[in-house]
Amino acid sequence: MADTVWPSCAKSLKGVILDMCGVLYDSGEGDGVAIPGSIEAVRKLKASDLKLRFCTNESQASRDKFVAKLQRLGFDISVEEVFSPAPAAVAVLKQRGLRPHLLVYDALLPEFDSVNKSDPNCVVIGDAAEKFSYQNMNKAFRVLIGLEKPVLFSLGKGKYYKEMDGLKLDVGVYMKALEYACDVEAEVIGKPAASFFQCVLNDMVLQSHEVMMIGDDLVNDVGGAQQCGMKGVQVRTGKYRPSDQNHPTVVADGTVDDLAQAVDMILSGRC
Amino acid sequence: MADTVWPSCAKSLKGVILDMCGVLYDSGEGDGVAIPGSIEAVRKLKASDLKLRFCTNESQASRDKFVAKLQRLGFDISVEEVFSPAPAAVAVLKQRGLRPHLLVYDALLPEFDSVNKSDPNCVVIGDAAEKFSYQNMNKAFRVLIGLEKPVLFSLGKGKYYKEMDGLKLDVGVYMKALEYACDVEAEVIGKPAASFFQCVLNDMVLQSHEVMMIGDDLVNDVGGAQQCGMKGVQVRTGKYRPSDQNHPTVVADGTVDDLAQAVDMILSGRC
Repeated sequence: MADTVWPSCAKSLKGVILDMCGVLYDSGEGDGVAIPGSIEAVRKLKASDLKLRFCTNESQASRDKFVAKLQRLGFDISVEEVFSPAPAAVAVLKQRGLRPHLLVYDALLPEFDSVNKSDPNCVVIGDAAEKFSYQNMNKAFRVLIGLEKPVLFSLGKGKYYKEMDGLKLDVGVYMKALEYACDVEAEVIGKPAASFFQCVLNDMVLQSHEVMMIGDDLVNDVGGAQQCGMKGVQVRTGKYRPSDQNHPTVVADGTVDDLAQAVDMILSGRC
Repeated sequence: MADTVWPSCAKSLKGVILDMCGVLYDSGEGDGVAIPGSIEAVRKLKASDLKLRFCTNESQASRDKFVAKLQRLGFDISVEEVFSPAPAAVAVLKQRGLRPHLLVYDALLPEFDSVNKSDPNCVVIGDAAEKFSYQNMNKAFRVLIGLEKPVLFSLGKGKYYKEMDGLKLDVGVYMKALEYACDVEAEVIGKPAASFFQCVLNDMVLQSHEVMMIGDDLVNDVGGAQQCGMKGVQVRTGKYRPSDQNHPTVVADGTVDDLAQAVDMILSGRC
């Protein structure tokens, strides 16, 4: 078993934010599978006096459908506890009067029902997976290159994630592709954007130093949380790779085998 | 008509290198169409005492097939005069004992017939167009991420090109995607790599200051040639866009309407 590293943040901890895919469950065919011990770990956190929120860059399903899947897997979780990029994107689009061309997974489209999509003046990409065809990438590109000042939103900037049949490219890779094609810098909505984490903290009514983020993605979960002043702990499930421990810029405050171990550490010593 | 700008390189000019797509012809269905005046312009250059070579990042067909297409369009051109990235890549792979996973257009595969492709230890991407599916990108990504030190070759780094039905994403965009996914910097084979231009100059037995490059791509044709010490002239055909004239780093030595005008300028004043 690899070493466990744990932060010394002690009794100040008042809340925990959990990443979802790779921490609670592994995705794949159907609903995927719960990671052993994680259903019970969530139950223990809920029974404690810690505040708990879930923060995902999931953009392959509407938040309602996504939470229903987690419930089917056995998790005690509700829509109000989950922060995902699409609702945040809708808020930004409306606030700035933008009409998106969407390159997202079909199942995410309902999140954008209330947004005017005619005569698009920006592009929003999510984890479109198989919809990242050459044809669809060209369509998004042509919208962007036809704008006087291209505006590109990306629902997260992850590089890849793990499904049961292997690693798969995430939205960040296609974000970089369109950035290069159009000489534009995308606006990221989701982790690791500070504004996204801050929304969660606001909802918890906690300060960043009172909260720990637990995720499998060193850059987007751990690094993003640290940028906001939170402790960031990485689990060795999901997309974790041993080389993460030699990352040039991000060093996790803690590294544990899985969520079950993290929660035991939190509850035994209150951090 | 837009202004003509022309370099004052005068009588020292001894050779000309022509980009092909967007200068000689516009691609599209079938063979595409010759750009008006370009067939006659090539004929005039060949009748002069200037040395002439063609330099393309074309990677959708083998060099033989590609040259045959140009001949069908009416151009006086032979395989020996054409420099394209795939033969250069084959030379590099053999020299370094590398076995590629190929993500290229089907019609380019014959160029790699002589290369060992078993148990790949690098990835080569070309302008794969419709073959840039999510599935194929994942396959290339998994080869790279599985290597201790990922090695990625890209046949050019163009952002987009123009076909008769509109702008289309080029290989450079997918190169950037895989670079980001794997934290690797691709080795570019083709324009604007200096080593590629130098091969052409060696074949011409000319010094760079004796040669002019004419292309429609400001960065890859004009900028690449200038980096090697050549004059770089841009034509207002193909992928030319008015905003090229405000590019932050590359300023063409000359800008003309099309190849016909460039050749008339060259031959009337010998530059």
